[in-house]
Amino acid sequence: MRLTGELLIGGGARRGLQGEIRGIDPATGEPMEPAFGGAGHDDLKAACAHAAAAFQPYRTLPYETRATFLETIAEHIEALGDDLIVRVMAESGLPRGRLEGERGRTTGQLRLFASVLRDGGFLETRIDPALPARLPMPRPDLRLRNVPLGPVAVFGASNFPLAFSVAGGDTASALAAGCPVVVKAHPAHPGTSEMIGRAVQAAVAACGLHPGVFSLIHDSGFEISQALVADPRIKAAGFTGSRRGGLALAAIAQGRPEPIPFYAEMSSINPVVLFPSALAARGAAIAKDFVGALTLGAGQFCTNPGLILALEGPELSGFLAAAEEALTPVPAAVMLTPAISRVYATGVRTLSETTGVNQVAKGQEPTRNQGQAALFSVTGETFLANPHLAEEVFGATSIVVRCADMAELHKVVLALEGQLTIALHMDEPDHALAADLLPDLELKAGRILVNGFGTGVEVCHAMVHGGPFPATSDSRVTSVGTLAIARFLRPVSYQNLPSALLPDELKPENPLGLVRRVDGKLQLG
Amino acid sequence: MRLTGELLIGGGARRGLQGEIRGIDPATGEPMEPAFGGAGHDDLKAACAHAAAAFQPYRTLPYETRATFLETIAEHIEALGDDLIVRVMAESGLPRGRLEGERGRTTGQLRLFASVLRDGGFLETRIDPALPARLPMPRPDLRLRNVPLGPVAVFGASNFPLAFSVAGGDTASALAAGCPVVVKAHPAHPGTSEMIGRAVQAAVAACGLHPGVFSLIHDSGFEISQALVADPRIKAAGFTGSRRGGLALAAIAQGRPEPIPFYAEMSSINPVVLFPSALAARGAAIAKDFVGALTLGAGQFCTNPGLILALEGPELSGFLAAAEEALTPVPAAVMLTPAISRVYATGVRTLSETTGVNQVAKGQEPTRNQGQAALFSVTGETFLANPHLAEEVFGATSIVVRCADMAELHKVVLALEGQLTIALHMDEPDHALAADLLPDLELKAGRILVNGFGTGVEVCHAMVHGGPFPATSDSRVTSVGTLAIARFLRPVSYQNLPSALLPDELKPENPLGLVRRVDGKLQLG
Repeated sequence: MRLTGELLIGGGARRGLQGEIRGIDPATGEPMEPAFGGAGHDDLKAACAHAAAAFQPYRTLPYETRATFLETIAEHIEALGDDLIVRVMAESGLPRGRLEGERGRTTGQLRLFASVLRDGGFLETRIDPALPARLPMPRPDLRLRNVPLGPVAVFGASNFPLAFSVAGGDTASALAAGCPVVVKAHPAHPGTSEMIGRAVQAAVAACGLHPGVFSLIHDSGFEISQALVADPRIKAAGFTGSRRGGLALAAIAQGRPEPIPFYAEMSSINPVVLFPSALAARGAAIAKDFVGALTLGAGQFCTNPGLILALEGPELSGFLAAAEEALTPVPAAVMLTPAISRVYATGVRTLSETTGVNQVAKGQEPTRNQGQAALFSVTGETFLANPHLAEEVFGATSIVVRCADMAELHKVVLALEGQLTIALHMDEPDHALAADLLPDLELKAGRILVNGFGTGVEVCHAMVHGGPFPATSDSRVTSVGTLAIARFLRPVSYQNLPSALLPDELKPENPLGLVRRVDGKLQLG
Repeated sequence: MRLTGELLIGGGARRGLQGEIRGIDPATGEPMEPAFGGAGHDDLKAACAHAAAAFQPYRTLPYETRATFLETIAEHIEALGDDLIVRVMAESGLPRGRLEGERGRTTGQLRLFASVLRDGGFLETRIDPALPARLPMPRPDLRLRNVPLGPVAVFGASNFPLAFSVAGGDTASALAAGCPVVVKAHPAHPGTSEMIGRAVQAAVAACGLHPGVFSLIHDSGFEISQALVADPRIKAAGFTGSRRGGLALAAIAQGRPEPIPFYAEMSSINPVVLFPSALAARGAAIAKDFVGALTLGAGQFCTNPGLILALEGPELSGFLAAAEEALTPVPAAVMLTPAISRVYATGVRTLSETTGVNQVAKGQEPTRNQGQAALFSVTGETFLANPHLAEEVFGATSIVVRCADMAELHKVVLALEGQLTIALHMDEPDHALAADLLPDLELKAGRILVNGFGTGVEVCHAMVHGGPFPATSDSRVTSVGTLAIARFLRPVSYQNLPSALLPDELKPENPLGLVRRVDGKLQLG
């Protein structure tokens, strides 16, 4: 595909005139062709107007049509072939294997949402039939189903150029819910964004949908991103990025004359608890796995293990020695953007300069735009006295907290902010200690996992990729997995509507064969 | 019950020292005994500390214990007997029949949430079993359930001293979810609040629960209410009241270091569309029913019909004549508080002084603290040119919009803000026109009803008492009906947990007999 650098708006393409954005190959620092034009306010307004115009026709399509549309997007992405992988590799510095896997996840989640549409459970249909003879008052006929919120703004993420960008999880779940999408491309991978954006546009055309269902804009600064969240036609937004960026956009979403839900996935250090028996029995093996998870993809995962909690003692010293041995030879790795590698280096320096923070190991020296893996240790006391040690440093760095006893470890847990994941390494003799900790752990994270690390987020029905603030701006939802569709829905109740006017979801004869809650009891369709 | 005027905090009672609050009999304007002491910051902090301490023990109780607790609250409210009704009548000016009905609704919704707890569907359990042989990567075992958010702040409503106050819908759904509650009593009915509060305290004691599960505070100003929303131990809040009050508290909730969900039900004019055939066939009867719904309880319902949309013509003139005939003899009615009747009178005056607004009818002249019913009419053009005509005037006043044609009526619909309810009066020949309007109507309201009025909100499974902004601050939820429990829950995912450590909800043998979504398919328990 020849890249044009254009904005993709409502089925068409046009050149943005507000500044220029170029992909930069982080491995070489070289800017890439072509230059992408930044959107102006007119472009943004056009995209939002198209999305608003598309909303009613799109949301009222049969669910089967929407499902086919999602599958068609997946096919068009696959049809981009190796050109796509080559471009993403160049723009992100990520290796081929990882990106081929990420492409599979991206098309897989589009197809998973197609199955969600065919299942219909997301509609949450409920029926309370009329009770005309009830005393003292008859009960009317009441029926409930979910409807989509309206056009959704999606902000592409730097660290998942496919799975959390133009046709990633936010877009897939919003389109599945019946919401047109306006994507703001991440400036780190504009070419990838155009390729995927054109694949979505082609799917819209192939399915004969309203062309306003999808638009893609580039922003050379922050102004258009902010205006996108503020546009009155946008009814919800999804974002994956920094805490600062997420909070700034969340404030705009909440300050609008009509506030809207803003789903930001922002910041998590994903604590790992090493329980005593597991540490004693297999500390060295855990250390090796830990270093693998820590340094995977230059540590640029939301679920990267940034904190280890364990009890002081010879077993922990053994773990640290094994971790040092595993980490020291790890090559420095190209990071996603020059800015990310600069911020990472600064974060690591701040850690290493904090009194009481000891360096356990460093990986190999970095060259241009690379991140050098790093591992530090502190006492529980030092950790509790220095809240900044609990802030995310995006990249392959982690801190081991050497706790005096389980009481101090528990205190550290209670002092933590909200997390995406908490991982527990344990053997059977650790169960009692773990059971003691679990009630507090589950208030701190969206996902709790045993004998593994949070990296490798499964896209399925029971996944929660979310968690209390600041992991996300809204702990009631997930941004990965089928439950992500709930972010873009709201319930509507219909009272005493004639059958002819009821939506198919709620008609007495159940033409869609849905599972429905009737008088409070679930009935399979 | 002898009222003491005390704060009820964590199982005890203490005198608040920050100013005084007294109930005022709105029928006479007389202040009532006793004086209630306003809470200070120490009282508030004590209530929040008790709630935080109670959270873990309360949320981990068996669901059956929680269900019994809700039922016990209902029994203790019933045991207050006629003393309760007499006090609410005096503090609210509402008639006995209405309040006996509201008491039944209050105890009924507590018992309904007990049945929700026994059903377990609110836990939304999902299980994706491990697929160890899957390629290229095995799938881990993933299990999801909902957990409660934490302590919840509830603000009593002026207009439902029982069903939306101390042990009303917000409290019932929060306690059902597993969240301790700190209630801020509405200053219009402090005596009612103490009686209900003591009934809840007695139920806490009778069930042997942690006494921090429930506290009740009074606030002589706004400072403690604001501090309650800002307290870091509070994790969500429910509010029913004015748009101004709701927005002020919502801003505090969002501006916290850790933002929390704030559920405000604020402002709705509940449009009623009269379709041509129904209007022609039975305009006079609809007019009579409309006046009944408009003036019920002095019009002090969130779902009061404040706007009528119909086509200009002789049928509408007939409707207006019948409405005038029905409304003119309606006696003025005591409103909930002197302040509410003042604000109502000002709102009606503003309407009547707006150019283009014609008075159709007024009810009987008011005396002290009474509201005089009023009906106005405007052209569609005037309505569209004066956005303030779409703002809620809390009380028995309504505006008929005389639309030139269906196109103009549709334009009026599109110009409306979000609503709790939209009512449609229609006969079979109107179905095509209604079908044309419905896609836009369902984006504007939480509930659409046919041939009735929004007043009389059924507490059931398929009810949505919610709607787009400014009807509520969060259109994704309802504050009435069993779905209200979802406001206080968040999902947690468990990956590869040993069976022994899984919560009962997710154990392989399904000891609670729950409905569960297994591999994406619902399985009855």
